[in-house]
This record gives sequence, C-alpha cells and structure tokens, in this order.
Amino acid sequence: MSLGFLDLRVVESSAFIAAPLAGLTLAQFGADVIRVDMIGGGIDYGRLPVMPSGRSLYWTGLNKGKRSFAVDLRKPEGRELVRALVTAGGDSGGVLLTNIGTPWLAHESLAGKRADVISCTIQGNADGTTAVDYTVNCATGYPLVTGGGTMEKPVNHVLPAWDIACAYQAAFAILAAVDRRRRTGSGAELKLALSDVALTMLSHLGVLAEAELLGEDRPSIGNHIYGAFGRDFGTADQKRVMVAGISAGQWASLVKACGIQREVETLETSMQRDFSKEADRYEARDAIAALFEPWFAARPLEEVERTLQEHRVCWGLYRPVTDLLANDSRVSDANPVFSRIQTPGVGAHLAAGNAVRATGAPPGLTGPAPLLGQHTDEVLSEVLGLDSGAIGRLHDHSIVAGPERDPTGGARE
Amino acid sequence: MSLGFLDLRVVESSAFIAAPLAGLTLAQFGADVIRVDMIGGGIDYGRLPVMPSGRSLYWTGLNKGKRSFAVDLRKPEGRELVRALVTAGGDSGGVLLTNIGTPWLAHESLAGKRADVISCTIQGNADGTTAVDYTVNCATGYPLVTGGGTMEKPVNHVLPAWDIACAYQAAFAILAAVDRRRRTGSGAELKLALSDVALTMLSHLGVLAEAELLGEDRPSIGNHIYGAFGRDFGTADQKRVMVAGISAGQWASLVKACGIQREVETLETSMQRDFSKEADRYEARDAIAALFEPWFAARPLEEVERTLQEHRVCWGLYRPVTDLLANDSRVSDANPVFSRIQTPGVGAHLAAGNAVRATGAPPGLTGPAPLLGQHTDEVLSEVLGLDSGAIGRLHDHSIVAGPERDPTGGARE
Repeated sequence: MSLGFLDLRVVESSAFIAAPLAGLTLAQFGADVIRVDMIGGGIDYGRLPVMPSGRSLYWTGLNKGKRSFAVDLRKPEGRELVRALVTAGGDSGGVLLTNIGTPWLAHESLAGKRADVISCTIQGNADGTTAVDYTVNCATGYPLVTGGGTMEKPVNHVLPAWDIACAYQAAFAILAAVDRRRRTGSGAELKLALSDVALTMLSHLGVLAEAELLGEDRPSIGNHIYGAFGRDFGTADQKRVMVAGISAGQWASLVKACGIQREVETLETSMQRDFSKEADRYEARDAIAALFEPWFAARPLEEVERTLQEHRVCWGLYRPVTDLLANDSRVSDANPVFSRIQTPGVGAHLAAGNAVRATGAPPGLTGPAPLLGQHTDEVLSEVLGLDSGAIGRLHDHSIVAGPERDPTGGARE
Repeated sequence: MSLGFLDLRVVESSAFIAAPLAGLTLAQFGADVIRVDMIGGGIDYGRLPVMPSGRSLYWTGLNKGKRSFAVDLRKPEGRELVRALVTAGGDSGGVLLTNIGTPWLAHESLAGKRADVISCTIQGNADGTTAVDYTVNCATGYPLVTGGGTMEKPVNHVLPAWDIACAYQAAFAILAAVDRRRRTGSGAELKLALSDVALTMLSHLGVLAEAELLGEDRPSIGNHIYGAFGRDFGTADQKRVMVAGISAGQWASLVKACGIQREVETLETSMQRDFSKEADRYEARDAIAALFEPWFAARPLEEVERTLQEHRVCWGLYRPVTDLLANDSRVSDANPVFSRIQTPGVGAHLAAGNAVRATGAPPGLTGPAPLLGQHTDEVLSEVLGLDSGAIGRLHDHSIVAGPERDPTGGARE
C-alpha cells in the first residue's frame, strides 16, 4: 500500500527517467498514476538491463505502482481516449505528466476540453531542442572536477542526477499546481527543462556566484570533500571507507577515533591553522589526510568499523551493489522502506517503497510495475464509464489492448 | 516574485544542503519560508566559498527568497518563540522543516500545541546515526563505476546528488501532507533518511534488481552511456563534446551529421548487429566510437557545433562554470529563469529563480538570501502578533536579534 496522502489521478505519457520517476513519486504518495503507452510499448520499454523474458528491469523499476493503459496512439480514436482520460474526473483528475510533446496533447487543446487542466511537460532545453542528462551535465562544469577530471579527460557521472532532480521538481510542481487549483480553481501549463534544472542548481549551490564574483571554478580535488575535511582511505584488507569531518563534532570524533590528537595539534601549530574551523581543515586537507592514512592502512575493516562506530564517526563503506544487497541491512526486509514484490515477467525481488516514513502509518510500500495494458479495461470502465460492449469494440478495432499484447510475454508467468 | 502557487508558511531549522534546498523549493513556489537561526549563525553560515566580507556564497545560494529569524536557541524563551512560530496560523501554517533533531522541536511536543502540525525531519540514517552525501554515496556502488572507478580507486561524485534528491523529496512530502491536511484535518510526522533516498533510488533505476536477479553489478565504462550509444569526443581545437544516440532518432541524426552511414553499415554487417536497437549499439560501443572519433578530431568546435545543430543531434559542450557564464545564453538574463539580484554582503549577481515555468505567469524569480535576523521583527509582529514593546524587550534580553548582529557585517553594505 502506498503512503496514501494524495487524492489525485495523473495520466503519464512518458519515456526515459525524469517523467517516469516523477510519476512514481506521485504514485508512492497515493496518486492513481495511469501510464499511457503505445500498444507493444514505447521507446524505452525494452531498455537494458533486461531479464531473459525481455522484461526491462529499468522500466519495471521506474514504473512500480502505476496502472498501465495500452492504446494505439497513431489512431485518432486512441488519442481521443487519452485526452478523455486526462480531462476526466473532478478535483482529483485533470493532470497530465509528460516528456513527449505532441500536438494532440498540447495544453491549449486539453484546456478546451477542461479549463482547469494541469499539464507538466519535461523538456530537454527550454527552446524545445533535445537534451539528456549526459549532454546537460557536461555544461555544468562538474565533469571537469569529478574524479580528478580535466578538459582533456572529463568524468561523466553515472548516476543520472539531473534526471532525478528534474523528476522530483516536476512532481513537486504538479502538487503545487493542484494545491493552487483547489484554492483558486485555476489550471496550469507547466514546463520544466532538464537544462534549467541543472543550471539553476549551480546558482543554488553557490557555484555560479563563485564563478561570477570570485572568478573561480571549483578546483578538481579528487575524493576530498570541498570546504571541509573528508576523504576515502584504504584498510589493511583492501577495503575502502569514506570518512567525513564536516561539522566540528564530526571532526573531533574522527580525530579521537584514530587517536591522532597530538599529531593533529602539531600540524595545526606548524601550519598556523585552527582546525576547529572547517575552512582551515580544507586548506590543510592533504597534510591532514597523510596523518590519517597509516591508521586505516594498518587495520582490517572489521577493526576500523568497530572503532569508527564506537566514536560515532560519520563514515561509509565503498561496495558494489551485489555486496550492498548481501551485507547491508538497510537494503533488506529489515528496512520497512523495502519489501519483496512479484513483478510480472521478472519474478520476486526486493523493491523500494516510499523513502518517506510517516509516524503511525504503515510503511509506504509500492506494488510492482504493470504489464503493458494490464489496466486498460478497468481504466476504461472506472474512469471513462464505458460498458463491456464499448470496451470490446475498442479491442476489436485494435484501438486498445490488454496484457496479452505485452511483447515480453510477461502475461504467461 | 516567486511563482506564487502556494499559500503556506514553513518554519525551517536547518543546516547543510538537503533541508535548506527543500525550503528554497517551497519558497520558489510561493511559500513563506522562515529560516530560524542561532544569533550569529548556525554551523554552516560561513561555509566556503565566501566573499571577502565573510558572507558565504553557499549559504546565500541555498537560502534565497526566505525570511530570517535570529534567536538565541539556547534560551527557553527563544525556543518557545520558535515553537510558537511553527504552530501559529491556520491552514497556511503549522509546518516545520528540519534536519536538526532536538527534543524541544520534537513532533509530539509540537503536536501538543497544535494537533495538526506537519513536521518533516531529514536524517542521515533512519536509525538516527549520522550520514552525509559522501558517506551514503559510497554504499551505492556508483563510485566504483564512475570515471573508470575501482575498489582501489573509487570516484566520488562532486555534485551532492543525494542531498538534492532528498531535498526535493522532502519538499514534495510536505506538500503531500499539506494536501492531505486540507482534506482530512490530520497532521503528519514525516521522516526521511538520506541513506533511504539513495538506496531506494537503486531500486527505482533497476540497479538493485539487476544485482539481485542477474547477479550483476553495473560495469565501469567510463564516459560511455550505459545501454545505448553516447560518449565524449575531442575536437581539433582541444574542446570536448558529449553526444548521445539513445533514441533511434538521436542515433540516426548523429550518424548522418558525421556522414559515416556507410562505415556504420559495414560495422553492423561485420559484427552481425542491428544498430537500430540501442542494446546492439551499446554492445558495439567501442567499435562505434572508433568510427566517430576521426570526424570530431578533424574539426574545430565551431564546425562541429554547426553541423551537429543542423542535424538536430543531441549533444553538449564540456566547459567550466566561468566559461558557461560567459558564453552560454541559458545562464544569463536572456533566460527568464535567471535574474540579477542584490544580495546583502555579496553584491549584484546572476541568480536562479524557479526552473519551472508557468505559461501566462511572470517568471518565478527569487529574492536574495536575507541577512541573519533581517526579518526578526516583522515575523514577531506579523506571525506572533507581538507589539513593539514586547519585541523591544526580546531584543533587550538578547533573546532575538536583528541584522545588526549578522557576523558578516553585511548590514553595512
């Protein structure tokens, strides 16, 4: 069961990451998210990684807890059904989430059917040109300062961070517009460009003003934390940990845990710095790291872990996802945020519910991703009020389809 | 002027990135966000980068468009004022956003004053232990696959991506709870752990199921895009571009722009692949990249840019932030999402408003970050209804302070 905060229906026509993740966010708080797809699946339905069945773990991860409506989007009758779904319902309906600009779903046209419709369109660039996470990220300067990156050898992030930020920002914007509609009755046409998400973040994080006012680009400092002290260290048994001494308390506990108070004081004196100030720790980061290195290098992870935990140090262990899954209880049934679900065409697996916990409420679990068209008939009946005869005719004319037309054959599982 | 969608007051007691960015998000949609700080500033008030005045570009970036209430949080009277601010107001008030767990702001205690209060607490780990972006990121596996990272040499991201995701998720959760309160009258105690934000994302992106069901960790493939074709290429004049051929259309336009249709067909035949399928392009990524490399290496950026744009290729240029600011009109007054603002202690600079654009509404601009205590008196008067005598007594007893006590002396500007 989702964290049932929302009384809202959202029609999602989407591909890739940002828009589907926005829809997932809404679904995880209780929205009825109806994902509309071309019969046979959209552009990203078979994206890697895939199961032997052909079912995509990428698609099924991003589309958990939604309903699927499969329709022939090339046919006028199919398009009219989608427009009817978007504009149906009272206060709880009338919301479109999309990253696929198409004239027959244009806001103005939808507003002709329902004046208070809310549409949120995710774009690449605001001028309508195409952009994806990777082609936006290169403009932000981050690849030139990540992992010792340079202009000759920039380092792309692998986590699609801008898609993620864009997704949550879009989901938030929809709720804000719904809130306003409840108060004022007005709809809204919202547009959000992925590039604007990234470029505005540079302002929020102070990086843009730094470039403008101080004429400085953030330095490329590898795994050091900018502005304070923190870095990765190797243990005697070839494990690796990240430690952070950002706040004064974190710093003090780290120094104490490693028992190098005297060495640190000596360094402070010789460098004429005050390491209770994070900026001074940052300035002296290499010299400080050299004091910590031997401590970690001399101890196996087990001892490092025990000591850091005893002293409440802020730290973490580097590990691949397979190791995380096998050995970190935060990613297991022991964490109420996770549960085991059964996804058609995939099987049973651990999956994340809502990361937000509400005291006194059951955990916000999320159902599996649907098969394509799994909810076509119930949506036609519940939302559009069609009877079984009308629904049958739509199938007969191949305007809609049920799960039997899912190309991954997941229906057979 | 903010995009005035929300009729909401939020009291923010925070530090670092996630909670302040959540507050900024709410402010940019019209919420009255009152940031409560210790007189003289909290733990991150002077964080790098700083202006010669001592004013932090980091803090002023994250706290644009908020009101500042400076108060002695050690004094019982100061704490009582903050509790009164949190619980004041009708439907539009009663919301606390924090990442600082403190008993006198505990939800239960606030609910004793106002039953329908909504609190959202951002934590490190759900068990209350400390964690920051960097110590969470190492657990996600991403540092082992970013920039050719390995266990011996992991690559931390520099963008605090998990803080950003956490911020937007928290802001969304608050709106969802407000929406529910408007309908049902119920408050909510919300908790969100940074580690849960990151670890649940592994499920949403399919990475967790991949590890569990296929026993595979994502490979470390440098700047290649996973699952499709895309990579960075150097130009004749030592510039560098990122190109993406994720969709079939993007791929076709890229091949056409570079005029290597024949070479690509020959490669397809020799490798027995079908490059209209993104998975096949991904498999053959190195061989494909070798076909593109000479085209880019033979041309200066100017020609590369012109040709890629003519063919509507999905691409971007790597550049540091200083170059972005000087040469990319997306980060300038020409983009309505940005405007020039005057921040006390900082001066005039370009700053980002709301990345979301609402058709027919003026751009969602955001005012500058306040001086500490800049709005203390007006908040006491407007929100708590105190008269000037009462406000004066609070100053006399050093329970509250105005901007004259801002340690950066910004008030003198």
